[in-house]
Amino acid sequence: MITVLRIGHRPARDKRITTHVALTARAFGASSIVIDLHDSQLENTVRSVADRFGGDFQVSSGVNWRRYMDESIAVKVHLTMYGIPVDRCIDSIREDVARKGNLVIAVGAEKVPGDIYEMVDYNVSVTNQPHSEVAALAIFLDRYNRGTELSARFEGKMEVIPKARGKEIRNRIGNSITTKKPKRKD
Amino acid sequence: MITVLRIGHRPARDKRITTHVALTARAFGASSIVIDLHDSQLENTVRSVADRFGGDFQVSSGVNWRRYMDESIAVKVHLTMYGIPVDRCIDSIREDVARKGNLVIAVGAEKVPGDIYEMVDYNVSVTNQPHSEVAALAIFLDRYNRGTELSARFEGKMEVIPKARGKEIRNRIGNSITTKKPKRKD
Repeated sequence: MITVLRIGHRPARDKRITTHVALTARAFGASSIVIDLHDSQLENTVRSVADRFGGDFQVSSGVNWRRYMDESIAVKVHLTMYGIPVDRCIDSIREDVARKGNLVIAVGAEKVPGDIYEMVDYNVSVTNQPHSEVAALAIFLDRYNRGTELSARFEGKMEVIPKARGKEIRNRIGNSITTKKPKRKD
Repeated sequence: MITVLRIGHRPARDKRITTHVALTARAFGASSIVIDLHDSQLENTVRSVADRFGGDFQVSSGVNWRRYMDESIAVKVHLTMYGIPVDRCIDSIREDVARKGNLVIAVGAEKVPGDIYEMVDYNVSVTNQPHSEVAALAIFLDRYNRGTELSARFEGKMEVIPKARGKEIRNRIGNSITTKKPKRKD
């Protein structure tokens, strides 16, 4: 079980970024996201995607992250541009998770409290450049899952059928297939 | 040369996401980002990072994206959850770029005009699940660069030295090395 722990979420400022973090967590194989500040709108957005596109992804917010960390017996990873490059530590992380059973990945917003660095087993960087916690999470999960997440099936009500042009969405409830040929909108 | 073309940027709503797209483009090996709506604040944010952390990353905004696409002779890719899985087309894209010399990667905000699907050489998906254009761009560039971008050096004024705990930043101008041991802030 992989849980993403979102630290420093500010509903007004970070709503969209945290939504991207949550949907990336789901699409790349995590089973849940835990967010420090309560944000019911965000929870609803993520649940709506999970409900339509499938899988068992769980979202909860308003959780004290320090207590969560303290009480967790999972392998704890913090994604940070200051950490050890992911390719140097991912095998060791995978081995630790094989023993302990669970993985928590802490992902901060712009400023993270300094004590997080001491609370985790691994501070991991995805490049040592400033970029995005969304990109860092995607690459970390990709390396952790050895790329297999890209072809995972979710068995949801809605399923996108890959196409070279246009959009095809299969709706499993009605057995209907919707194919849209995009048209020029200008 | 790899250019990221950001379509549908709305400065009020997308400032942070587009900043993440731009910084991810830079960190993962693109040489520039072109944004449709003018946003000088966003340009300044990205230039400030590039100035401190190095490289030649260019940013411009207020560019008519359809004209940009029409006039470009690069290989054109559009990242979309409806497209062909990246692992199935990345070799072909790399071969095309080897012939044509340049690559443009179009990345839309939530709604993209439908004609984009017809204007590009490849509609590419990074999973067929809804998640994030930031994650999609990171994985696409990672596959395109075969993971080598993760160990690229930027030779900037500031350089982060990877550490298991805490933060170490080398400042090349003053030859000073700043090491911060994070302290508990609660």
